[in-house]
Amino acid sequence: VVSKLPSVGTTIFTKMSALAAEKGAINLSQGFPDFPPDARLLQRASQAILTGNNQYSPMTGLPILRDAVANLIERHYDRTVSALDEITITSGASEAIFDAITAVVHQDDEVILFDPAYDLYEPAVTLAGGICKRVTLMAPDFRPDWHAFEALLTDKTRLVLINTPHNPTGSCWLAEDLESLWQAIASRDIYVLSDEVYEFIHYGESAVSVHKHAELAARSFVVSSFGKSFHLTGWKVGYVVAPVALTAELRKVHQFVTFCTATPLQQALAEHLLELPEESAHLATFYRQKRDVLRKALGNSRFTLLPCEGTYFQLLDYSDISDLDDVAFCEWLVDHVGVAAIPVSVFYQQPPENQRVIRLCFAKEESTLLDAAQRLSQL
Amino acid sequence: VVSKLPSVGTTIFTKMSALAAEKGAINLSQGFPDFPPDARLLQRASQAILTGNNQYSPMTGLPILRDAVANLIERHYDRTVSALDEITITSGASEAIFDAITAVVHQDDEVILFDPAYDLYEPAVTLAGGICKRVTLMAPDFRPDWHAFEALLTDKTRLVLINTPHNPTGSCWLAEDLESLWQAIASRDIYVLSDEVYEFIHYGESAVSVHKHAELAARSFVVSSFGKSFHLTGWKVGYVVAPVALTAELRKVHQFVTFCTATPLQQALAEHLLELPEESAHLATFYRQKRDVLRKALGNSRFTLLPCEGTYFQLLDYSDISDLDDVAFCEWLVDHVGVAAIPVSVFYQQPPENQRVIRLCFAKEESTLLDAAQRLSQL
Ligand SMILES: CSCCC(=O)C(=O)O
Ligand SMILES: CSCCC(=O)C(=O)O
Repeated sequence: VVSKLPSVGTTIFTKMSALAAEKGAINLSQGFPDFPPDARLLQRASQAILTGNNQYSPMTGLPILRDAVANLIERHYDRTVSALDEITITSGASEAIFDAITAVVHQDDEVILFDPAYDLYEPAVTLAGGICKRVTLMAPDFRPDWHAFEALLTDKTRLVLINTPHNPTGSCWLAEDLESLWQAIASRDIYVLSDEVYEFIHYGESAVSVHKHAELAARSFVVSSFGKSFHLTGWKVGYVVAPVALTAELRKVHQFVTFCTATPLQQALAEHLLELPEESAHLATFYRQKRDVLRKALGNSRFTLLPCEGTYFQLLDYSDISDLDDVAFCEWLVDHVGVAAIPVSVFYQQPPENQRVIRLCFAKEESTLLDAAQRLSQL
Repeated sequence: VVSKLPSVGTTIFTKMSALAAEKGAINLSQGFPDFPPDARLLQRASQAILTGNNQYSPMTGLPILRDAVANLIERHYDRTVSALDEITITSGASEAIFDAITAVVHQDDEVILFDPAYDLYEPAVTLAGGICKRVTLMAPDFRPDWHAFEALLTDKTRLVLINTPHNPTGSCWLAEDLESLWQAIASRDIYVLSDEVYEFIHYGESAVSVHKHAELAARSFVVSSFGKSFHLTGWKVGYVVAPVALTAELRKVHQFVTFCTATPLQQALAEHLLELPEESAHLATFYRQKRDVLRKALGNSRFTLLPCEGTYFQLLDYSDISDLDDVAFCEWLVDHVGVAAIPVSVFYQQPPENQRVIRLCFAKEESTLLDAAQRLSQL
């Protein structure tokens, strides 16, 4: 077999979670909660299954769920979108991102992304026949350099991939970043894919969102995920909001990739969103507390804590502890300290030299976080 | 937006199901059951959700489900496959088919398929940059012509897409068809994607399967679907069996398309398969009865019943009733008779002239089938 993705191996998440299980380490690598979702939501899913929501949903998603998403966006961002032809339910945010890239990137098109970048962006671009160009973001604050961005624009640029709150760094963009992006691309035929799966997990006053920038929104796919917002990464229900013409192209791909997403889980999420519309507004408070527990517990360690403005990821600089590169350091950590983390270099095509940073997931019970911090503080 | 799939509209299934709902017609168009799945399976899913199987599964699928699939294949086909590196769980058979095509079809590769063909094959090939060549199958028996097939083989042929039991025609291949396929491709560097989602729904003694042809199996992706075998098309859990090297390439795509599939539904299916391993053996008997009810009830109508050897689809020739083409006839049927069917011409790139055939789905309660047959018999 001649590989279409010769340089792709198993993702770091699969590797580190397997290693954590094998060594019995505390798993702060792959991003998922170790606590249960809201019991009322689970009851709704159980009921949806038992009362017969077990056949195909419409290809675009259950109407009741698309309505609920439209309400959510109206409430949080004061943006009106059409549930009928601007919202599509997908099998996780991953499928939404894959579909959007596949829908608009043609052979030899260029796509700009910001490194470190989530690991599925580039393979999706490669499979579409596109080419990735990169703006490199650097510790400790990972701010985008808009001059560097503009220097990458060409007539072949078709898509810009952005992600805020940002995985793996926990940084958030500012409103002025979206404006700089808009100014740079306004006069060109370029689309934007905004990965906002951590939209409700931010620690400033409010999170920047493409939903709040009307001109950008008119060019953008905005992707989000119920898995992140409701603590059920294993349900694989996500959604994508895009203007009618972009949605039409995305749906052409979606209908042949998965056609539709688990009906009973869609039904349960719709009922939950409609009955408890303010739930997601509490998410930031919920995770801020976990972030602060972890940061405090690591306060006297030899790790340097980088800022964490959003997501459930905390970066640690370990330069004072070890000269190992971050992949080797993570392997060593699992073995000798019993904590599994994610090396940040794997999210770069060209990792900055001498950047020694690892990522911890704090979507965990307080006891798990304290236990891990204690182990890490012994170094 | 410049479309990557300019000729693709909304699928016929979406259109006809929407039309049926709008007109209050009996919906025998899109293939899905109108009766519930096994209550024990629903209980298992409810329990899986309530007891906490709500985070990411491994990318390849839950080990317990892959083991259950390996057992199923061993029992039914006497074929031993590795649950570890030859079985992958996907978000429905659709995703399995999309992933397999995307994994092996390179720019300008040729793919051979048999028309009429399920509607997602061609767009997936197109998105991968491949080109479809077609062998046309004709009513009433839809047998493949292996000379016509051989005439299409070139140095660029990379993949052959086969489907038995066959949607939309309800025909089944014979063991000699698989052998003819094997003889034609044995000396060439060609893979096979065998869509066997109706594997347990066949009305002869036993169904032909690539699983039973060792040489072909060593070159093939074999795709199946729990949705079809357990009456829950809305769960979107499928699987693909392929030799190690092909599985490795497929998983590279899968991990970036959906990463994994709804964990609680995987858990429920695994427990069900392990506790009731003989369930799927009864499926043929179950559907044979429905087929026979429908055929008998249409026996005195002016439709000509084509043979139905497998799947839950019955073809009807309406040449004696109308000169309309089949798309127009289906629209007329919904309006004037209150029955929604699928025109077979939409599964062809070049529909054979004067073939006037529609498809009815009989995965329905007996009362639904009798009601529809009565309406159709009035013509
Ligand atoms: C799909 S596994 C990766 C989960 C995640 O988003 C992360 O850990 O960054
Ligand atoms: C995914 S909707 C189509 C269902 C089906 O397989 C059919 O009706 O042929």
